Amino acid sequence: MKFGFVNKDNMSLLTDLYELTMAQVYFEENMNKTAVFDFYTRPDKRRPYLVSAGLEQLLYYLENLRFSEENIDFLKHTGKFSDDFLDYLKEFKFTGNVYAIDEGEIFFPNEPVVQIEAPLIEAQIIETFLINTLQISILVATKALRCYSVAKGTGLVDFGLRRAHGTDAGMKAARSSFIGGFIGTSNVLAGKEFGIPIYGTMAHSFILAFGDEEKAFETFAKYYPDNSIFLVDTFNTIEGVKKAIKVVKKLGLKNFKGVRLDSGDILSLSKETRKLLDEAGLKEAKIFVSGGINEYKIKQLLEAGAPIDAWGVGTELVVSADIPYLDCAYKLVEYNGEPKMKLSSKKITYPGKKQIFRKYETGIIKKDTIALQEENLEGEKLLKLYIKDGKIVKDLPSLEEIREKSIKNLNKLPENIKDINSKEIFLPEISEKLEKMINQIIGKLKGE
Amino acid sequence: MKFGFVNKDNMSLLTDLYELTMAQVYFEENMNKTAVFDFYTRPDKRRPYLVSAGLEQLLYYLENLRFSEENIDFLKHTGKFSDDFLDYLKEFKFTGNVYAIDEGEIFFPNEPVVQIEAPLIEAQIIETFLINTLQISILVATKALRCYSVAKGTGLVDFGLRRAHGTDAGMKAARSSFIGGFIGTSNVLAGKEFGIPIYGTMAHSFILAFGDEEKAFETFAKYYPDNSIFLVDTFNTIEGVKKAIKVVKKLGLKNFKGVRLDSGDILSLSKETRKLLDEAGLKEAKIFVSGGINEYKIKQLLEAGAPIDAWGVGTELVVSADIPYLDCAYKLVEYNGEPKMKLSSKKITYPGKKQIFRKYETGIIKKDTIALQEENLEGEKLLKLYIKDGKIVKDLPSLEEIREKSIKNLNKLPENIKDINSKEIFLPEISEKLEKMINQIIGKLKGE
Repeated sequence: MKFGFVNKDNMSLLTDLYELTMAQVYFEENMNKTAVFDFYTRPDKRRPYLVSAGLEQLLYYLENLRFSEENIDFLKHTGKFSDDFLDYLKEFKFTGNVYAIDEGEIFFPNEPVVQIEAPLIEAQIIETFLINTLQISILVATKALRCYSVAKGTGLVDFGLRRAHGTDAGMKAARSSFIGGFIGTSNVLAGKEFGIPIYGTMAHSFILAFGDEEKAFETFAKYYPDNSIFLVDTFNTIEGVKKAIKVVKKLGLKNFKGVRLDSGDILSLSKETRKLLDEAGLKEAKIFVSGGINEYKIKQLLEAGAPIDAWGVGTELVVSADIPYLDCAYKLVEYNGEPKMKLSSKKITYPGKKQIFRKYETGIIKKDTIALQEENLEGEKLLKLYIKDGKIVKDLPSLEEIREKSIKNLNKLPENIKDINSKEIFLPEISEKLEKMINQIIGKLKGE
Repeated sequence: MKFGFVNKDNMSLLTDLYELTMAQVYFEENMNKTAVFDFYTRPDKRRPYLVSAGLEQLLYYLENLRFSEENIDFLKHTGKFSDDFLDYLKEFKFTGNVYAIDEGEIFFPNEPVVQIEAPLIEAQIIETFLINTLQISILVATKALRCYSVAKGTGLVDFGLRRAHGTDAGMKAARSSFIGGFIGTSNVLAGKEFGIPIYGTMAHSFILAFGDEEKAFETFAKYYPDNSIFLVDTFNTIEGVKKAIKVVKKLGLKNFKGVRLDSGDILSLSKETRKLLDEAGLKEAKIFVSGGINEYKIKQLLEAGAPIDAWGVGTELVVSADIPYLDCAYKLVEYNGEPKMKLSSKKITYPGKKQIFRKYETGIIKKDTIALQEENLEGEKLLKLYIKDGKIVKDLPSLEEIREKSIKNLNKLPENIKDINSKEIFLPEISEKLEKMINQIIGKLKGE
């Protein structure tokens, strides 16, 4: 019986078989010149902007990637690999360079979020893990910042661990939602591993185990007098609020935190709850809302005047329910100094080593231009060197700093792109030099 | 810099904070009588039937769940827990019973897939991890079996690792899709950890790195003469097929595996490809298709006569794209011998310790009945005792056995439920005794 955990020692095998079979051909053929690969997303009207996230996990992987003896033994046992290649893997390390957009930075479709420049074999082998780590992190950070953008200063907490797709997704969801402006998570391990503030209330089972709401509230408050949020919807929400008030009065709680509503007509229930709390002199008590929350419901409820102070956002956040995957790719754009692109489908890739230049007007993003790395256009350079020759060469920001960056970036977005109902596509321009390169390659490929 | 891996030592903290704060109240109040919790899903027209999966991972968790010293230290540092409770957690073990539907078995909404009977604290603390592990496993196993049900014997391979939501989702997707009838996965680590057959072809980057399809094919075949599948769509699919044939002839490959089509109009391209291969005498060469594949496309292409032999199914499988989460719950149904249910919303839960009885007619599932555990109705009992007093008491089947079970079960489904376009809801009946119990509780709650 195995759980099948992924850890530092076996993450090298969390890859598609073809990465290793192709790598073996490259190795045997001495085809290991420098390759450049771009990771980027393709346009999708459901996400006019995206938030970079997951880079730190990728850097960890690249710095620690080794094929342990046990891994090598397994590969040998498959019968697909030569002893020479396995000897090479024994000494394998990532020795390349990594250019990336900062975590918490806004980016747009077609922009390389991460650009890998490394010996071909290394750049190829890391593909699967790179996409696996970045996609879900970007999806959740973006969904979180969309929630933040309409939350009008109300608090947002990640309640999604249970519905995330497995253990790692739960960890990445906590980290990425914090990046996207959430104030914390229910995930205790994310609190331990990433230092994210942890939050919690109580479950319906707690009320049911007592069989009596009043007794359940009273007992809970006995142990958490300054930290109680009573779940009031187990039987009848308004009756539940009344019982909560009764318990607060009875125990003389000075720092009563508030109540959580998890079902029903939240708009009317929250208004009635606020009224009851205020009438009881509990103006400081907060109203927390959970249950099927997403950015659209937050916007709708707050615009309708629902007096809600904080949200537990779960399932729809952590699985990015309306867009559970990104159309994204990791494509070879240069090999041995020669720019490369695929031609067969309508999905054109931009060849060559690149930089993205961002221009602002009165603090608002006006245009991004994808250019060749050698160019020096006006504007802020988005791609920064994070790893050089296999070693991290940039101070990594704290999670709090990344979170602040992402929140500030929201103010740099044009209104029509920031709007959660926007269906606009904001595309980067490409520089003249890059365009010329593309046309040359197309001409050459078609001429063949 | 941390990756944030979840492992055997820290999985106890991969839980929502409230599980632990509620547990502390139960502990301090000596409220630790036997509780029964049900894990079940609610009706959804997009999934008329579901496949049980993920149980082995849950059993692993329950048998190995401990709070290490490091975990205890972290909890202490939060300031939310008493020394007495932390001392209790130091000795914590799961000592309860687990009843579950076999992995690979078909189940329907409202049926308890897993029923936990344990001291209240234990049954509560495991909630988050239990749902996290089961939901994604069930989602992918079900999606996979839907693909299998329309694949008419063609091969299905999991290509989704890169687009799964993180590392653990990639592992669970490989395991669950194998359960759902797939023949293997591209995920090398899943091959190592679970013994699943691993498959792979080649990437567009491989062609681009050579810059020349013919040379790329020829070089690949040099190392994998009996195991080459050429990716033919990098520049022009039909030209790619012609080059593949040329290389096969040139090298005199005896066991050429075939070609992979990854883009374009698959119906016409696959027909033309088949024609070219056959004309070249390569009748044994297979056509593999990948790129945005799901059960609907498989059905459509095969019904239109596309001569496809095998499929690489990726993103839509591993994120269960059309239904990326299940409406599922883990609810207290009994405490200290007293049946429990929540009343406030429309979502009624069935109280009490239960069994599911399944009746067949000419080999086809006719009806399921949810009854009390003490009842002895006609039919096959679906809930089996897997863990007794904290220890596994049932021989666990191999993954191959689970896979066979799930494939066989497909033949027991009524046609209108098996149809991937079905929107029917197949609900279990409830026994007279269970119904009586429900009515008694409702009466009591309303009478209060």
